[in-house]
Amino acid sequence: MVTSPIVNTYPLSSYTFGTKEPKMEKDTSVADRLARMKVNYMKEGMRTSVEAILLVQEHNHPHILLLQIGNTFCKLPGGRLKPGENEIEGLKRKLTSKLGANSAAHVPDWQIGECVAIWWRPNFETIMYPYCPPHITKPKECKKLFIVHLSEKAYFAVPKNLKLLAVPLFELYDNVQRYGPVISTIPQQLSRFQFNMITN
Amino acid sequence: MVTSPIVNTYPLSSYTFGTKEPKMEKDTSVADRLARMKVNYMKEGMRTSVEAILLVQEHNHPHILLLQIGNTFCKLPGGRLKPGENEIEGLKRKLTSKLGANSAAHVPDWQIGECVAIWWRPNFETIMYPYCPPHITKPKECKKLFIVHLSEKAYFAVPKNLKLLAVPLFELYDNVQRYGPVISTIPQQLSRFQFNMITN
Repeated sequence: MVTSPIVNTYPLSSYTFGTKEPKMEKDTSVADRLARMKVNYMKEGMRTSVEAILLVQEHNHPHILLLQIGNTFCKLPGGRLKPGENEIEGLKRKLTSKLGANSAAHVPDWQIGECVAIWWRPNFETIMYPYCPPHITKPKECKKLFIVHLSEKAYFAVPKNLKLLAVPLFELYDNVQRYGPVISTIPQQLSRFQFNMITN
Repeated sequence: MVTSPIVNTYPLSSYTFGTKEPKMEKDTSVADRLARMKVNYMKEGMRTSVEAILLVQEHNHPHILLLQIGNTFCKLPGGRLKPGENEIEGLKRKLTSKLGANSAAHVPDWQIGECVAIWWRPNFETIMYPYCPPHITKPKECKKLFIVHLSEKAYFAVPKNLKLLAVPLFELYDNVQRYGPVISTIPQQLSRFQFNMITN
C-alpha cells in the first residue's frame, strides 16, 4: 500500500501562550491594502507571501492555529517575503515576528515542512486562484502555504491585538463564508497526510 | 527556494480516443448504491476506492479527464478495490477496465503517481469528508485520489455509454454545484505541483 506522509500532532495543552506588544495591520481597509500592493509591485515586482499551517490536536482531531483580528477575520501566521528572500528563512522570520517570544531563547525552532498549496493573485483585487489563470502573464502575488512541524512543547507570544485560535478541521471544511477560499480548503490539502496524534 | 514536484502535461491532441462496449453502472439509483454498499460492508468491511487524475493540457492550462454519464454526472476513472488488493495495482486494473483498449498491447502503461487527497465516508450516506470525523471509529469507505502520469502518446477506449471530457482547472474551481465536493477542489490539491506544459 502507499504510505502517507506522517505529521505528529501534540495536544493544544502541551503549548504555552503569552502575549507581546500589538502587531498592527499595515492597512486599515481593503482598498488601502490593494493600493499599497500596487505601489510595491511597481517597485519590486510580484509579491511572494508565505503562510504557516501550525497543527495541534484536541479530542483526537487535528486543529489549525489561526490569528484572529477583531471579531471575525482570521488569517494564517506568515506574511510577505523581502525581494529575493528565501521562502523557508522568510517564513521563519515571519513566524518569529508574529508568534515568537521577544527573548530569542524562547523562540520555537520552526521546522518548515511540505508546501501544501500555492495561490495566485492575477490582478490588484482580493480574488485569488489555486492556479495562474490562462492569459495572465504577470500575476501580482504568489502565496505559498507550508506545514510547520511543531515540537512537543513550545511557547508562543501572541500580539495583544490578536487572538490565537485552535480551529478544528471539521469547522474549516466547507466554511468559505467564515474562513475564505484559502483557509476553508486546507482540510482537503491535508487529507493525504496521516496524523499521528500524540497524547500526553 | 523550495522546488515543487513537476508534472509533465501533453496536449490533448497527442492522445487518441476510440470506443468500446458499454460499462453500465452497477446501480440505477443512489438508494440502490448505498444499499449495495451496506451489503458489501457486512461481508468485507470498509471499502477502499481509488481514483485517477489524468492530466492533459490545452491552451497552456491543465485539464483533467472526466467520465461523463448521461448529461450531467461526471466522475474520475477508478473504482473499488477487491478486499486486500494493492492500491496501485487496483487502480491500474480499474483504469484498464474503464479506459484501456481490449487488446492488451494498446493499453497504456499506467504510471501511478502522488496521492493528492483522501476522502472518508462515515455512514451509508452520500456525504464524504476530507478527514475521518471525530467519534467515527468504523468509516464505511476511504477514497484515495492519485495523479496518473500520462506518457506523451496513449490510446484510450471509452465505453460507448460514457463520454470522456477534458475539463480545465478553472472550470472545476469553485464549482461544487456541477462537480461535487471531491472533484471541485482538485485544483487546490494540484496547486503545489509545477506543470511542465509540453507542446508538440
